[in-house]
Amino acid sequence: MPLTPEQEAEIAALRAAPQPTLRAVSPGMEAHLHRAIPVLDHGLVRVVDYMGDDAAIVQAARVSYGAGTKHVSNDEGLIRYLMRHWHSTPFEMCEIKLHVKLPVFVARQWIRHRTANVNEYSARYSILDREFYIPAPDALAAQSTVNNQGRGALLEGAEAARVLEMLKADSTRAYDHYEAMLSQDGQQGLARELARMNLPMNIYTQWYWKTDLHNLFHFLRLRADAHAQYEIRVYAEAIGKVVADWVPLAWRAFCDYRIGGVTLSAPALACLKRMLAGETVTQETSGLSKREWSEFREFWT
Amino acid sequence: MPLTPEQEAEIAALRAAPQPTLRAVSPGMEAHLHRAIPVLDHGLVRVVDYMGDDAAIVQAARVSYGAGTKHVSNDEGLIRYLMRHWHSTPFEMCEIKLHVKLPVFVARQWIRHRTANVNEYSARYSILDREFYIPAPDALAAQSTVNNQGRGALLEGAEAARVLEMLKADSTRAYDHYEAMLSQDGQQGLARELARMNLPMNIYTQWYWKTDLHNLFHFLRLRADAHAQYEIRVYAEAIGKVVADWVPLAWRAFCDYRIGGVTLSAPALACLKRMLAGETVTQETSGLSKREWSEFREFWT
Amino acid sequence: MPLTPEQEAEIAALRAAPQPTLRAVSPGMEAHLHRAIPVLDHGLVRVVDYMGDDAAIVQAARVSYGAGTKHVSNDEGLIRYLMRHWHSTPFEMCEIKLHVKLPVFVARQWIRHRTANVNEYSARYSILDREFYIPAPDALAAQSTVNNQGRGALLEGAEAARVLEMLKADSTRAYDHYEAMLSQDGQQGLARELARMNLPMNIYTQWYWKTDLHNLFHFLRLRADAHAQYEIRVYAEAIGKVVADWVPLAWRAFCDYRIGGVTLSAPALACLKRMLAGETVTQETSGLSKREWSEFREFWT
Amino acid sequence: MPLTPEQEAEIAALRAAPQPTLRAVSPGMEAHLHRAIPVLDHGLVRVVDYMGDDAAIVQAARVSYGAGTKHVSNDEGLIRYLMRHWHSTPFEMCEIKLHVKLPVFVARQWIRHRTANVNEYSARYSILDREFYIPAPDALAAQSTVNNQGRGALLEGAEAARVLEMLKADSTRAYDHYEAMLSQDGQQGLARELARMNLPMNIYTQWYWKTDLHNLFHFLRLRADAHAQYEIRVYAEAIGKVVADWVPLAWRAFCDYRIGGVTLSAPALACLKRMLAGETVTQETSGLSKREWSEFREFWT
Repeated sequence: MPLTPEQEAEIAALRAAPQPTLRAVSPGMEAHLHRAIPVLDHGLVRVVDYMGDDAAIVQAARVSYGAGTKHVSNDEGLIRYLMRHWHSTPFEMCEIKLHVKLPVFVARQWIRHRTANVNEYSARYSILDREFYIPAPDALAAQSTVNNQGRGALLEGAEAARVLEMLKADSTRAYDHYEAMLSQDGQQGLARELARMNLPMNIYTQWYWKTDLHNLFHFLRLRADAHAQYEIRVYAEAIGKVVADWVPLAWRAFCDYRIGGVTLSAPALACLKRMLAGETVTQETSGLSKREWSEFREFWT
Repeated sequence: MPLTPEQEAEIAALRAAPQPTLRAVSPGMEAHLHRAIPVLDHGLVRVVDYMGDDAAIVQAARVSYGAGTKHVSNDEGLIRYLMRHWHSTPFEMCEIKLHVKLPVFVARQWIRHRTANVNEYSARYSILDREFYIPAPDALAAQSTVNNQGRGALLEGAEAARVLEMLKADSTRAYDHYEAMLSQDGQQGLARELARMNLPMNIYTQWYWKTDLHNLFHFLRLRADAHAQYEIRVYAEAIGKVVADWVPLAWRAFCDYRIGGVTLSAPALACLKRMLAGETVTQETSGLSKREWSEFREFWT
Repeated sequence: MPLTPEQEAEIAALRAAPQPTLRAVSPGMEAHLHRAIPVLDHGLVRVVDYMGDDAAIVQAARVSYGAGTKHVSNDEGLIRYLMRHWHSTPFEMCEIKLHVKLPVFVARQWIRHRTANVNEYSARYSILDREFYIPAPDALAAQSTVNNQGRGALLEGAEAARVLEMLKADSTRAYDHYEAMLSQDGQQGLARELARMNLPMNIYTQWYWKTDLHNLFHFLRLRADAHAQYEIRVYAEAIGKVVADWVPLAWRAFCDYRIGGVTLSAPALACLKRMLAGETVTQETSGLSKREWSEFREFWT
Repeated sequence: MPLTPEQEAEIAALRAAPQPTLRAVSPGMEAHLHRAIPVLDHGLVRVVDYMGDDAAIVQAARVSYGAGTKHVSNDEGLIRYLMRHWHSTPFEMCEIKLHVKLPVFVARQWIRHRTANVNEYSARYSILDREFYIPAPDALAAQSTVNNQGRGALLEGAEAARVLEMLKADSTRAYDHYEAMLSQDGQQGLARELARMNLPMNIYTQWYWKTDLHNLFHFLRLRADAHAQYEIRVYAEAIGKVVADWVPLAWRAFCDYRIGGVTLSAPALACLKRMLAGETVTQETSGLSKREWSEFREFWT
């Protein structure tokens, strides 16, 4: 997504005028502010504002625990303790506001995260731009044959070419007709709120999205996961890099306990104990279903 | 939306087997349960479950107020008092679960109401049906010339015909290509989660949507309003009729205080007092902006 | 908490008049409806209403997955899959409404669960009853010497007697003075909203509390946990027994995956793999902090 | 609430070190940051952090409306339009974090506003200070004789003296016994989580409370209202003054449309039209109940 010169100038202007503040400042986040991070072919993520830093998490936790927390030797230890024991409220004390440009079908997944504030570009009110997501060759995947909700091998050759041709031609035609329906050239022009329904779901929309760090971590855990759809995962990964610079201690705890962590069921834990005691456990003797067993095996192999 | 014989049979089966319960029962709502109310050309609203009735609102309010509420002579008086003074929690004690079939562009507005539970048909996982919303002639409106977000006169003649032709042809082609991309006839078949992006936003989706009565009233206030887009308003109106049968006392209070009520600003109230005292007030002498004045005049003329 | 004859009669009346409904009915839950389950010395939990059952969870999930879920052989397998993979929305499709009588200090913890609907008895409006929580001898615990937030051994002998005497005497005196301040015998009487501030936090309050099954599970995971304060844990345990009868399949999945499950961090998982490969790992060689190591050891010993 | 020298020094240190930021800065809010605003006898409100300003509201709204909003001549007009038409999402784009010290019975009302983030001082973990709210003479009000939920005349003379004496003596005794129960002087000491239950609800607690501007306005509308209890109203008023400096345009719109505005029901509006047409309307001819009529009359007299 090459920015227009106007947009480049606007970002430069926003970054040119630092002002003094008495609030907590995260140097790592200041470096990101206003800058557009390209995602997919025309999308972007841009930090518009933020509140708090690692110290704000600690500060809130110490309000709860009073003098009693003194014995936790340092901030990182406390943050890891909070993450390990699912204490969510101190992480809610940090807030982030993003400007995101994304295809509508991605927006439809994203909006399912309800604990957030959103202002989306209104196609009732305004006219959408001619910008569509067309997958790059390395994202043009076949339906998985083993997972209804996943991807298999890449499409190649004639099939890839044919699919890309359809996506491009249909996007172009739909937008041409969108414009034609809106046209007032000797006509009344269809209402915008109706004309938009002709547009396919790979068209780009944009919004301001604001959420707290606890809910952002929840979003990232689900959407940066290997099972998430690639087209939302790349947004989650871009945001993850920003968060790593914003609240480095919390980010590391999140990676250790959530992203890299695993949850074992009570029956799976029972198997594990038998295995640690030297027993050879098979699916048949495990008490787990085939599916549970295969997911369990993935943890430790 | 003519139901298939299978669907008719399924609804008949669900309605054929009443079971005893010790819970509050709303006879008006039982009459609606499971039945499909047609909306738009292929849409529907269907009550899947509910909790509570007018008495449940009163019961919850009396927990709060204890013996103190005895002097409110009757249930209707108490419900009207609660509505008038914006007491929201007693209305939250009733819950409704709906099955809704609706075009995607309507779903995108609807989902903005965050305090609700939703399970939507997954186009990552399954294949969408070939059903698209095509406006009836009396819904094919031009863009308003005075309101960016509204509709003007109906399109007629050649323009109407041309618009309908585009909508139908593009829907058909988009779905044909969706199927062609998914096809595994000698091919791998594009992943469902990718192929769906070719579909326009007038395709129908469906979901289970569950919310409490307070939040439902908020939804209805915004979406049954004359300024709401026609295509969501018809859903709100269909739901309103159900609510009128479910909780008739609360519904009447809602109509009087929210749907039919108006909010006056402090400056508008000051004008009103002058007018009631016999003074002739004009926009120039009102202290209101032109827009505020014209909205104010609408209230009392 | 012996019920008054009036209350017994009211519950009997509520249970005497089953009505037909076309909604989902959970037989296990009907057996609980309206009955008061005693908790602590004067508290109670009572199911006032509910919506949905195990089949409602499955029904909602199948809306999402469409025909695609057919291959999950049965309802229990699907429910376990949803629980294992943190799918929350199908569980949100069940709802429960409870009447709870509980000490104020317990209510202050409970209310932190925000995704719920609450109507509490108002001490601004009405006069609280003379009922206070006084711990039974087996709940009168000393401060833990190893955990700022926990309990140690039971108090006994003179210390126990002295503590109980203080709690009882202060409750009695506070309530006597509450009544004296409210008294209008030849006086004006202090406003109720002020007089209540003299009451200690072991006084009982009551509320209607309504939430969905997903959020109830979250509540139970935190409050039925061994680290939760005993006085809220007994409420969580009483509710857990009700849930086991209401949605037996979901309850079993919850016990296996949440209550009995454990979460391992990425570094802990790495240790585990080394141990399973036959290596002897100590805290020193584990890469875990002392605290993390000791929590890790608890899992598998 | 005279601050301790340590606290004064801490605030001075926080205010002494401005740092550059590229975020939106509200000069009016910077003047408040970290400073303690005294409320009641020992309470306080203190701005710990904030995000956004009036321009952030406008910026978010313009994302929604795109180029279409250009014709709204200025920011203030747009903000007033948003407020008038109940557009909540742009106001959600501003966030505030407060440190509040408040009596427990006030905290119990406050926490009912669920859309907020809270970290409260934990009396399970730490020991509460000996600080109790004792009403000043001008807040020592009798129970209203006309409103179950309100206050009448001030208590005076012997009755006032007696009430104050009870409040003070009971607070002192309760805290003495709290300390005695915790004491480990030759004893085990009761668990903190139990000992706290002896404390009356006029003891002070403290928390960090974070919310967005839309929800803050909702809080202020209910809690700065004349019908709110005095002891929470003074907190709302203190916060209101801060908001007026933070987002002056939004604050003015809020005062005009919410604080100073009135909502008329459909039947009341019908009366008004008849009155404006010159008719003399009485309660008997109004179609309103006595209570509705008396509330209606208050609007315009």
